[in-house]
Amino acid sequence: MTGREFFTARTVSEVLSGFRPARRTAVETVPLAEALHRVPAAATLSPAPLPGFAKSTVDGFAVRAADTYGASEGLPSYLDLVGAVRMGRAPDVTVPAGGCVAMPTGGVLPAGADAVVMVEYTAETMPGTVEVTRPVAPGAGLVRADEDVAAGGELVPGGRPLRAPDLGLLAAAGVVEVAVHARPRVVVLSTGDEVVPPSTPELRAGQVRDATASALAGLVRDAGGEPVLAGIVPDDAGALGTALKEALRDADLVVVSAGSSVGARDETAGAVAALGEIWCHGIALKPGKPTLLAHCGGVPLIGLPGNPLSALVVFRLVGVPLVWRLAGCERPPPEPSTRARLSRDLPSMTGRVDIVQVTVADGVATPVFGPSALLSVLTRADGCLVVPEAATGLDAGAEADVMLYR
Amino acid sequence: MTGREFFTARTVSEVLSGFRPARRTAVETVPLAEALHRVPAAATLSPAPLPGFAKSTVDGFAVRAADTYGASEGLPSYLDLVGAVRMGRAPDVTVPAGGCVAMPTGGVLPAGADAVVMVEYTAETMPGTVEVTRPVAPGAGLVRADEDVAAGGELVPGGRPLRAPDLGLLAAAGVVEVAVHARPRVVVLSTGDEVVPPSTPELRAGQVRDATASALAGLVRDAGGEPVLAGIVPDDAGALGTALKEALRDADLVVVSAGSSVGARDETAGAVAALGEIWCHGIALKPGKPTLLAHCGGVPLIGLPGNPLSALVVFRLVGVPLVWRLAGCERPPPEPSTRARLSRDLPSMTGRVDIVQVTVADGVATPVFGPSALLSVLTRADGCLVVPEAATGLDAGAEADVMLYR
Repeated sequence: MTGREFFTARTVSEVLSGFRPARRTAVETVPLAEALHRVPAAATLSPAPLPGFAKSTVDGFAVRAADTYGASEGLPSYLDLVGAVRMGRAPDVTVPAGGCVAMPTGGVLPAGADAVVMVEYTAETMPGTVEVTRPVAPGAGLVRADEDVAAGGELVPGGRPLRAPDLGLLAAAGVVEVAVHARPRVVVLSTGDEVVPPSTPELRAGQVRDATASALAGLVRDAGGEPVLAGIVPDDAGALGTALKEALRDADLVVVSAGSSVGARDETAGAVAALGEIWCHGIALKPGKPTLLAHCGGVPLIGLPGNPLSALVVFRLVGVPLVWRLAGCERPPPEPSTRARLSRDLPSMTGRVDIVQVTVADGVATPVFGPSALLSVLTRADGCLVVPEAATGLDAGAEADVMLYR
Repeated sequence: MTGREFFTARTVSEVLSGFRPARRTAVETVPLAEALHRVPAAATLSPAPLPGFAKSTVDGFAVRAADTYGASEGLPSYLDLVGAVRMGRAPDVTVPAGGCVAMPTGGVLPAGADAVVMVEYTAETMPGTVEVTRPVAPGAGLVRADEDVAAGGELVPGGRPLRAPDLGLLAAAGVVEVAVHARPRVVVLSTGDEVVPPSTPELRAGQVRDATASALAGLVRDAGGEPVLAGIVPDDAGALGTALKEALRDADLVVVSAGSSVGARDETAGAVAALGEIWCHGIALKPGKPTLLAHCGGVPLIGLPGNPLSALVVFRLVGVPLVWRLAGCERPPPEPSTRARLSRDLPSMTGRVDIVQVTVADGVATPVFGPSALLSVLTRADGCLVVPEAATGLDAGAEADVMLYR
């Protein structure tokens, strides 16, 4: 029944570089207001140059730069004020040699002008004449018509989740819909005879409410995915096989929150092996060793350890990048982190990644120890510290990167 | 009309410590599946101890620890196997002196036992007898009935946005609804004769599409708020006053994306002064100086600079913590950041915070310079670097914290 002996265990780096399904979600068009953190399927190009017209960046006067050369407080240039530009309107004047036009910030540069002098360096001592007390170079005080983006230039790249400022640039270019990858559907299947729904008011001895599924749903959302909680299946090979088949039908990723006993884990492995190819069974990771990764007819599957804490550590490390990748994003957005000094030695084994939950205060990271059966370890921690594969441990006082939870 | 001279300019630290409206959003109850990153109004206490029963954390045998003292590979303890615990069920046996009961991980510890021996340190060479080859201490291989959380103990604190693992612990405790602060309604009012909606297909000379509102909406969502884009008001004192009154009626925060010219800014200040108390007009911040902060009958108001880049810098620095605070969260969740070496000198002025957009590659931060009229500076940057008030600048090669965009 088990066949566990035949499956390979892998290191974390082997998993991250090697378990890379080709599947990508379909592309759909969404309005800008719903596009935040979605992953564009391709680069969006600007239909026209931006801002689209040479534009003043200061309040002042549009001039021919040459007319200001040599100007100083002691010996100003005197220019004829021939008109004013109004916001949002095309100029109805041109700037002749020896002339100038009043400009608001953001106004259209009139023909004839090649610079804008800030109002601070001018004075209007006589009506109709402007004194300029500083010279300006051509191009000063303005942006060119295509200085933000050229026609056909890239507004936002494909494959990178859209950030708030990206939405601004798209809006500026009149792009009000974006073609993005659909949110990956992550079907979470909980298993275990002891597991009951969170809404169960009273527990019988030995029963536990399904904690992992709700927490996984949060991690899936943070990774831009759509969690689908498919319910709880008893530790029964037939029921598990049926539920898995059902889950795989409409999923981009299936996550099995496995039973915690060896028997339950073997049952999961057996049911998965019948539906696809097991890629690894066991990761050199603590906590999180009894993790199963498989390809089931094009759909990746993660079998998580039974302990909620271990399950969440594994999903953060292995599942989150996978969800982004399914949506066409190869480099997930950065996570909050900080450098902190260790409050104590952290022993570890070479060849294994150790994940240690820590609190962080005043630049010091203090491990929150506790059995991985405890969820409160995770809710008390400010983040986690990764002891890398190559290390035999970290010394007290050593600086380390802590991934902070948000 | 202007009265700008009467208003105080403030430093960034004065703004962050001093502009702290007392307003908080109402409390509403949401299901767990919608509670991610919402801010609980108070601590949630556990109605019962968790896990609720003494529970095995290993596959093995429940024993009386004393029966294993002195056991070794050479001289095992021999214990009578008196039964087995099934997952999710109350044990139907007790462990007598000299006896043991087979246990799955997660099973209920039977009466009489005080420890669980891992199956790895046992052998069943004769049916009905278990050899134990290592001693265990009382409490080994199990968690106590209240080891995760005691009855009445805190599951999650109030005031801290809920993280994915928090949802797991709440589910484990049977808490399927949480009382959280409503998402702050942030009404964004765009102003300017030159500003037209993003959906405008063709621009006339001098017109610009409203970029700031869409980008602000993204920042508001990232801060847990609900953006309400109230449209575009022309540079007209009457129209602005009417629109502001309307915006204030149903907002927790009003953001005016102001016109970019001095005249437009003065008009905003005048309209705001008529409706409330201006707290400051001008922040020692670059870009972002012409920022206005006001209290309007209990509703805070931010008047942003006209340039989209400046507006977004100010909103990130001042607006984002305010949105969190309105939802009852005093310490916003951590943002992604990294340490990087500067590619070049960054001059700055003491007493002013400078925000420099940078790209980051191989640990080196390279400034992305460009007029603040350009939005593409923000979309090209990986993050921004804060040159603090006290500094006169940063030297090339110096290490600095970069706030990364996500």
